[in-house]
Amino acid sequence: MSQANRSGQTASTEIDLALFGALGDLAQRKLFPALFQLEREGLLDPNTRLLGLARQDYELEDFRKQIDKALHTYVKAEELDSEALERFLARLDFRQLDFTTVDGYAAIREWRQDGLARPMVVYLSVAAKLYGDICRHLDASGSLDEQSRVVVEKPIGYDLESSAEINDAIGEVFPESRVYRIDHYLGKETVQNLIALRFANPLFGTQWNQNHISHVEISVAEQVGIEGRWGYFDEAGQLRDMVQNHLLQLVCLIAMDPPANLDADAIRDEKVKVLKALKPFTDDMLGRDVVRGQYTAGTVNGKSVPGYLEEEGANTESHTETFVAMKTGVSNWRWAGVPFYIRTGKRMPEKLSQIIIHFRQQPHYIFDPDQRGLAANKLVIRLQPEEGIALEVLTKDSGLDKGMRLRRGPLHLDFNSAFPKTRIPDAYERLLLEVMKGQQYLFVRRDEVEHAWKWCDSLIEAWNDRAEPPRRYPAGSWGPVASIAMITQDGRSWYEDY
Amino acid sequence: MSQANRSGQTASTEIDLALFGALGDLAQRKLFPALFQLEREGLLDPNTRLLGLARQDYELEDFRKQIDKALHTYVKAEELDSEALERFLARLDFRQLDFTTVDGYAAIREWRQDGLARPMVVYLSVAAKLYGDICRHLDASGSLDEQSRVVVEKPIGYDLESSAEINDAIGEVFPESRVYRIDHYLGKETVQNLIALRFANPLFGTQWNQNHISHVEISVAEQVGIEGRWGYFDEAGQLRDMVQNHLLQLVCLIAMDPPANLDADAIRDEKVKVLKALKPFTDDMLGRDVVRGQYTAGTVNGKSVPGYLEEEGANTESHTETFVAMKTGVSNWRWAGVPFYIRTGKRMPEKLSQIIIHFRQQPHYIFDPDQRGLAANKLVIRLQPEEGIALEVLTKDSGLDKGMRLRRGPLHLDFNSAFPKTRIPDAYERLLLEVMKGQQYLFVRRDEVEHAWKWCDSLIEAWNDRAEPPRRYPAGSWGPVASIAMITQDGRSWYEDY
Repeated sequence: MSQANRSGQTASTEIDLALFGALGDLAQRKLFPALFQLEREGLLDPNTRLLGLARQDYELEDFRKQIDKALHTYVKAEELDSEALERFLARLDFRQLDFTTVDGYAAIREWRQDGLARPMVVYLSVAAKLYGDICRHLDASGSLDEQSRVVVEKPIGYDLESSAEINDAIGEVFPESRVYRIDHYLGKETVQNLIALRFANPLFGTQWNQNHISHVEISVAEQVGIEGRWGYFDEAGQLRDMVQNHLLQLVCLIAMDPPANLDADAIRDEKVKVLKALKPFTDDMLGRDVVRGQYTAGTVNGKSVPGYLEEEGANTESHTETFVAMKTGVSNWRWAGVPFYIRTGKRMPEKLSQIIIHFRQQPHYIFDPDQRGLAANKLVIRLQPEEGIALEVLTKDSGLDKGMRLRRGPLHLDFNSAFPKTRIPDAYERLLLEVMKGQQYLFVRRDEVEHAWKWCDSLIEAWNDRAEPPRRYPAGSWGPVASIAMITQDGRSWYEDY
Repeated sequence: MSQANRSGQTASTEIDLALFGALGDLAQRKLFPALFQLEREGLLDPNTRLLGLARQDYELEDFRKQIDKALHTYVKAEELDSEALERFLARLDFRQLDFTTVDGYAAIREWRQDGLARPMVVYLSVAAKLYGDICRHLDASGSLDEQSRVVVEKPIGYDLESSAEINDAIGEVFPESRVYRIDHYLGKETVQNLIALRFANPLFGTQWNQNHISHVEISVAEQVGIEGRWGYFDEAGQLRDMVQNHLLQLVCLIAMDPPANLDADAIRDEKVKVLKALKPFTDDMLGRDVVRGQYTAGTVNGKSVPGYLEEEGANTESHTETFVAMKTGVSNWRWAGVPFYIRTGKRMPEKLSQIIIHFRQQPHYIFDPDQRGLAANKLVIRLQPEEGIALEVLTKDSGLDKGMRLRRGPLHLDFNSAFPKTRIPDAYERLLLEVMKGQQYLFVRRDEVEHAWKWCDSLIEAWNDRAEPPRRYPAGSWGPVASIAMITQDGRSWYEDY
């Protein structure tokens, strides 16, 4: 991370951004709105150009209309500054392209002609199986130079082997230092705040280890179900879809040793150390510490919803998990003996992502014996629905009739109320800005992806050997009862009252 | 502290409370309003009786009218529940009494006749020079029994010797276990919260020492000046008036080792250890680490006010200090090398009492070099004007253009906003309730008073030897420039932006 970026005073330099899949869902819903926000905040260099690429044949004017429509749909009305909008649409260019054949790529080289002094960013918002072809064709067509960067989205493969294939193909054209693998969780303000919380605050930093932390809890609950992509999801399952990337990235940021500096590789070296130290799965653990679930019909938000096996396009024999909970850990000096309870599922009662750091209890307790169970300190880092941080402390209950009774009092840092003038940028805004600046610290390095796959693969393999069906849970519940029991048997419970 | 009290479920038992100085300022302004609040909250036993004693000759009805008037002046209108008020006034009795001669005390014994089974609480809201006489006369008149308690207010004496005399006189009649010395700071919710914060929260408790805390700051700023009691104040000065009691009590609660339990003597034993370990004054320190001040004319709250030497009744040669700041410390294992900066003064710009625990900086700093000076963690405990607790942490600045910039973000626990239904009781409510329950942990033990005097006496003696005039500061300022320099020379500053 360069000085300039850490000081943060620079906007991006001028860039040519070529966006593959410009008419796709992600581009419309997230990428163009994010680019527009950068425009609005003056963070796009005036000469930066945006090229949309898609299979569909659009006239430039129609493409601009389509993007205009997307912005009107996905950006808040009060943020749709008309001058910024005009400026933004004027940057857009469009080429129709068959991604799989090299012929059309000349169009990109041509578009680049007058801009070759500028770095190009190639954003691949397409299926991963196309990554290799696109990279090769870009290279073969002479569209790239020594500064060109490529941005790829998850999922990168299906397991260690397939991810290695894809990364090999990308690597033939782009060296690792110019590959930006997105895990959009890393773009979330609160996730980045983990770095600030841990390494800027000695109060937390000095206690961030097994001497002071009893356990860590990560919950990523989705309310949605399969949303019409049954076939795609069923190939993957919740472990590959959520744990291999998002949850393990959170584990890394929570568990990593302090990096020597904020350079991308200093941080990623530490993250890889965590992934390598993840507790391996043993036979014992599989029965006791890992719970797979699959939702049945139920009620979410007051609405009846079908079970996973009743969704459109479902194979009614599927054993794919839509929920996974596990008690894992990081086998190193810092974290020995500290359970990491993680869970993620679809069709949960609410959309909720949170990390809870549970500090150990007092070494000696002097207050009311009947309040002894009151957990003392928890740091609650909430990513969704609202980003925020709260520290739970015990204070004296101030009622006169209470004597020296204790009370749980959260010390709140709600970004919206603490800093009401600050808009919390979407993860993609941050990530796109960092790509344009050439800063990799919020992106996932190849060895991270691969170590994460290795660990997940070993679990999937064990599951396949056992061939047990997942446990059922009704849509709208917090997952199989076994996932509650898993933590309860340790005398703990999932945190639910933020 | 008994089980019953720690569980906090009990109100006070039935009591006879005899209040000497019932028509005095403190009684009218604080004690009767506090007793009324206990009434209103159902914390006075139905049989508890209140006897007012004063030199003035009042009929009972006139006394009740006077108390009614005081309550209407000092209790919020919405809290003046009429039923509670009626019940309260009905409890009141009154006797005119010359405190200095034993003859009148028979009236107290008579009042007690039908109540001798109940413990009596004698509250001495009179000048300390009367304590001895009153105790002797109470005893001689047969008004006391083996359960009677006495409550005394500061100042207890003028130095170690005079305080010992007073305490001896009290001690002839009341054993220490039935003497309740009030320092009303100990009745403040936030001060008691120090006990909860330190000993219920491992996050703070485990870092509460010189390894983790760089320095401690205590400011008790008054806006008022001498308020017509020049002669009285001039005999004492700010050190005796504020430091010897309130500020040293705060130092004790901050610095004491964890007590084994919440029993009064377990806590007070620890406090005494702190007082004994207070850094002795050396010649070096006197010039460098202690600043005496005296206010000159100035502006407070937009109003011109006279200087200390121009107040009504002033001796224009007085060297008495109205401000004192010092850098002191506690010479023991826990606090070695940690400065305690304390200051208190009259005619400051605002009424403000706060304690700031400054935690040490990060051992290794990885963020922007230009933000290195940003102090990381402070625990701010505010007693006045509003009671509240805030923990300052550094978070990531969420502006998109900020990169990994840090920002100070207070985690706030404002009792009023966090627990809006909770009225914060006045210190005297808590203290009166504890006296009636027979709980001494919020009262000052004799050896505490004496060790505090011993330390202050040594400073006063040194001042007297030097015979230097105090430094001037204009009313409405934060004290002499030297008090700013005292902390600035250590590369620190007084905390002013809560």
